[in-house]
Amino acid sequence: MKFQCPPGMRDFYPEQMRVQRWLLELWRQVSRTFGFEEYEGPTFEFLDLYTVKSGEGIVSELFSFTDRGDRRFALRPEMTPTLARMVAAKASSLPRPIKWFSLPRMFRAEKPQRGRLREFYQWNVDVLGTDDVIADAEVIAVAIEFLRQVGLSPQDVLMRVSSRPVAAAVLESLGIAPENTLRAFGLLDRFDKLEPEEFRRQWSEIAPGISCEALLSRLETADLDDCLKLVRSAGPQGDEAADQFIKLWNRLADLGVQQFCCFDLKVVRGLAYYTGPVFELTARQHQLRALLGGGRYDNLTELLEGPRIPGVGFGMGDAPILELLAATGKLPDLADELDVFVIDAAEEYFPRALQIVQALRRAGLTCDFSYRRQPVSKQFSQAQKRRSRYAVVVGDELIQRNQLTLKNLRTGEQCLVSASNFLTDPAPILGPNCPRQP
Amino acid sequence: MKFQCPPGMRDFYPEQMRVQRWLLELWRQVSRTFGFEEYEGPTFEFLDLYTVKSGEGIVSELFSFTDRGDRRFALRPEMTPTLARMVAAKASSLPRPIKWFSLPRMFRAEKPQRGRLREFYQWNVDVLGTDDVIADAEVIAVAIEFLRQVGLSPQDVLMRVSSRPVAAAVLESLGIAPENTLRAFGLLDRFDKLEPEEFRRQWSEIAPGISCEALLSRLETADLDDCLKLVRSAGPQGDEAADQFIKLWNRLADLGVQQFCCFDLKVVRGLAYYTGPVFELTARQHQLRALLGGGRYDNLTELLEGPRIPGVGFGMGDAPILELLAATGKLPDLADELDVFVIDAAEEYFPRALQIVQALRRAGLTCDFSYRRQPVSKQFSQAQKRRSRYAVVVGDELIQRNQLTLKNLRTGEQCLVSASNFLTDPAPILGPNCPRQP
Repeated sequence: MKFQCPPGMRDFYPEQMRVQRWLLELWRQVSRTFGFEEYEGPTFEFLDLYTVKSGEGIVSELFSFTDRGDRRFALRPEMTPTLARMVAAKASSLPRPIKWFSLPRMFRAEKPQRGRLREFYQWNVDVLGTDDVIADAEVIAVAIEFLRQVGLSPQDVLMRVSSRPVAAAVLESLGIAPENTLRAFGLLDRFDKLEPEEFRRQWSEIAPGISCEALLSRLETADLDDCLKLVRSAGPQGDEAADQFIKLWNRLADLGVQQFCCFDLKVVRGLAYYTGPVFELTARQHQLRALLGGGRYDNLTELLEGPRIPGVGFGMGDAPILELLAATGKLPDLADELDVFVIDAAEEYFPRALQIVQALRRAGLTCDFSYRRQPVSKQFSQAQKRRSRYAVVVGDELIQRNQLTLKNLRTGEQCLVSASNFLTDPAPILGPNCPRQP
Repeated sequence: MKFQCPPGMRDFYPEQMRVQRWLLELWRQVSRTFGFEEYEGPTFEFLDLYTVKSGEGIVSELFSFTDRGDRRFALRPEMTPTLARMVAAKASSLPRPIKWFSLPRMFRAEKPQRGRLREFYQWNVDVLGTDDVIADAEVIAVAIEFLRQVGLSPQDVLMRVSSRPVAAAVLESLGIAPENTLRAFGLLDRFDKLEPEEFRRQWSEIAPGISCEALLSRLETADLDDCLKLVRSAGPQGDEAADQFIKLWNRLADLGVQQFCCFDLKVVRGLAYYTGPVFELTARQHQLRALLGGGRYDNLTELLEGPRIPGVGFGMGDAPILELLAATGKLPDLADELDVFVIDAAEEYFPRALQIVQALRRAGLTCDFSYRRQPVSKQFSQAQKRRSRYAVVVGDELIQRNQLTLKNLRTGEQCLVSASNFLTDPAPILGPNCPRQP
């Protein structure tokens, strides 16, 4: 075959698609139980929407193109700019808090040889329109509820939580000038990706007088109380940062998710627009990229030249979490199943069999039949291959007594049922789990 | 606000997204009851996949771009090439028939000023790996089952069915040389779009000796029997075309969908790769583009340099059908609803209220609360605004007697319930439809 799937992109055959749908539906369902509403945006946006906050440098990381009118567009690399644009456009009419989620596909112009994906699904959950840390706690809690539902525990994953104002106060306590804070965040975000020597070199450019060891020992202060004491010593701003963080930490306890969380000053996140708490989820045992990253962004809509609307949220890609679930044996068995396979005892019954197929489908059952006219035994083995729960045989009994043969393919039990009762309301005859839940 | 949604693209706010999800889920559910399995492909493909069968001319209708490795890609304008590529790549291992559906987003570089969409969702349903007309009948039947479920009847919509071999024989009977058949199909497909004079002019180029009136009167022969008699007079090929069409027509009756269908020779469909039956769905009363178009394509995988795998399928865009459903008042009421809104009687109960919120969410209920601490009456009106079915008040009764106040916001009824019973298994206390089906 000459034509292939483009590098870094994925074909989802039914087998892979079942896993994908299971994940997407679980993300959707958990979001909905938390009262989040779903939204979507266009797959590509004006390129400016991404360059306005990151500069032209970001263009090389995007797939961009022009239309015949020479407008410049880019495939979306993240959802937050679209979200901020949409919310800002209706800022005055949307009831607060704005609790929204989305399940978009995203695109990044990664080098294909590194095996990184150029297209992926991403669960996005955001609360806009409030400064209250309850919003930050809720977005963290919805992520953790998803983890619980897939069977991951605090032994498997860790939600590392920090705060940019807290981290800034700690850096200040080391002697880093406030104007260098963002640059220091940018470097810290790449701590795990850089060679120690390279990290040291870049650090010495940002803070020539401060040793790398001093920085790291300060950041590794795992004790929250010690750290916040230090932060409070930085004056009123430090006090506020410490108060807000403690409030968030307590809300995580109220929501019953604190045992998944730890305080970790080394988490700063790469995006420039974060202004408050930041967090990321990592697997404890497996060498995977962050499973999820997020934080508070109170100035983003202003960066896009809209009104100020505070917000907090996260994005979780599909690939790392599926990898973790596969590695820990937590993917469910999702082989496709039919409710009923309809068999014709002889070719002359085929038109009647088709009517029965259609009646069962209309009753909500997943129902199929053999396209080929072949012996009953071959039709039965086709039913088995398709993992059908029941087989219905259309034969002489239908003509003579208006009855159908119903066979439970799990137990082998077989009986005759009244065709009219069965076709009017098959559910009580088939018992629970038929029709199966999608 | 400086930034806008790109022209021809759509923002789906929660209100629109609910409609979109309703449509997508119904497409999915109907497909599944027919035994179709879901697949997906990459949002962009190598550009060659589209030019190989349509020539470089198609590039102007696509959004295309290159990556840093100078590979040329295009956003997918239709799903069938991806499907053919995926099936051809695993031709030997996929059990037949291959019954697949997909709900992809598609892209066309339409001129934005015409108000046509540049991005849309499309329901794709295909059967590959069989020549049998039962496959053609099933894909038509699954579309019609969807129409039934949204409440559209044969008075609203019409599935116009034809066949390229039948149409070719009719054109031959008029004296059109076989080498001009495809050109004639291309022109006929634009019959509704061209001015009569322009149609006449182009027709005279294809068939100089044959009047336009003769063509149209022949094509408007609505009578299937008369038409097939004519087709049979064209020899063995005509006989086979007529036999196959009659077989399809009877299968549509067996599947109980023939009353939605009519025979219409003027349907030829624009795509060059169709080889057998072709069909499109049109609204009777409303001036809309075709709601759905499809047909049999037995040579497509060969055109892509793979093995021969016959196939038949259709694509149905989201925009025209949603327009028709809106115009005929058939869109469901989909205002978002909560199951339970949890209210704290006083601020000191807020942490307990949060625990209760989380317990209810974990039980699968859609549950929310006020981010602001405010009087109970204000929290009740927030619950009403969110269209919650129930409100739960967390107050003194919880501390004193481990009870919660449960209020049905539809009926106004109110009672005290045991907190432990309610939180362990809320469903029997709340009654049917709680948790609501997504």
